Amino acid sequence: MNLKGKRIAILVDNYFEQAGFEVPLDFLRQLGAEVSIVDATTQNLQGMRHTDPGDMFRGTLLLEKANSQDYDALVLPGGVINADSLRMVPKARAWVIDFTDRNKLIAAICHAPWLLVSADVIEGRRLTSNPTLQDDICNAGAIWVDKSVVVDDNFITSRNSEDLGDFTKAIQTWFSTAAV
Amino acid sequence: MNLKGKRIAILVDNYFEQAGFEVPLDFLRQLGAEVSIVDATTQNLQGMRHTDPGDMFRGTLLLEKANSQDYDALVLPGGVINADSLRMVPKARAWVIDFTDRNKLIAAICHAPWLLVSADVIEGRRLTSNPTLQDDICNAGAIWVDKSVVVDDNFITSRNSEDLGDFTKAIQTWFSTAAV
Repeated sequence: MNLKGKRIAILVDNYFEQAGFEVPLDFLRQLGAEVSIVDATTQNLQGMRHTDPGDMFRGTLLLEKANSQDYDALVLPGGVINADSLRMVPKARAWVIDFTDRNKLIAAICHAPWLLVSADVIEGRRLTSNPTLQDDICNAGAIWVDKSVVVDDNFITSRNSEDLGDFTKAIQTWFSTAAV
Repeated sequence: MNLKGKRIAILVDNYFEQAGFEVPLDFLRQLGAEVSIVDATTQNLQGMRHTDPGDMFRGTLLLEKANSQDYDALVLPGGVINADSLRMVPKARAWVIDFTDRNKLIAAICHAPWLLVSADVIEGRRLTSNPTLQDDICNAGAIWVDKSVVVDDNFITSRNSEDLGDFTKAIQTWFSTAAV
């Protein structure tokens, strides 16, 4: 299974968790996918290693210039600062609604599911996340599960960087089984 | 009005927003209150200036050695990293429940109201917070208000460091009018 011809957007704001960004990026590119880094507010992106600054990255294009219909899947890295601000970006919420309406994959790790809470798309769904979000996810009407990866229809979610192996494998499996 | 004889706990985990910690601390001490810095996990506390490290602080005592009944009020500074982890500390949740049950003041700013969400004490109450939390607060059954300070019974909440003047003034007013 390769992902040649698949177009995938990794959507971030500044100060994302570097591992949850780089590992899926490299994995998906190695499978042949065309991956764009879509940044919500700045093209000069500071990665984080937990609370310490990591490396700088350059986005492919700004969210305001991007079109959700150009992509087959959406990947949302974590990092508490990134996820806390991204949920407030109206176009980021609109993308999550659009991908969900079209049954296109949204793969979210760590704190990223806050954007799914604010897009109001998780009622009745099964998700995991960084454990600190579990009350917010339950209060939004979803079922929070403490597993390394949870696949529910178009949502793939994982808890943290230690789950990245299962997270990326689930993305690959999703494409090999979904009629996309 | 002075606060002589009042014992106030400022409860934090590491990486709190420095302004929301220092300004209430200095304000309350100047009014004569006995203020303890109660830290959830470490006595070597790193303050933050948004995403940059600020100064280091030393806690008065660890939460595990502290007793909620020794304090007349609880102040919760913000900072996204501090607030994200503090909500997961069982004794921090227990304190919020205990202060609420005894109608003792809880003053929370910025991201701190996440702890009130996880303590499950805000249903039907009026609160403000950093705007990024508004969906989590509404999903927990509270009414989120976009004001510099909101006073609802034993809760005083503010949005961010720019509201610190109104926040501290409301704490002073609360003590001058409450029968405590």
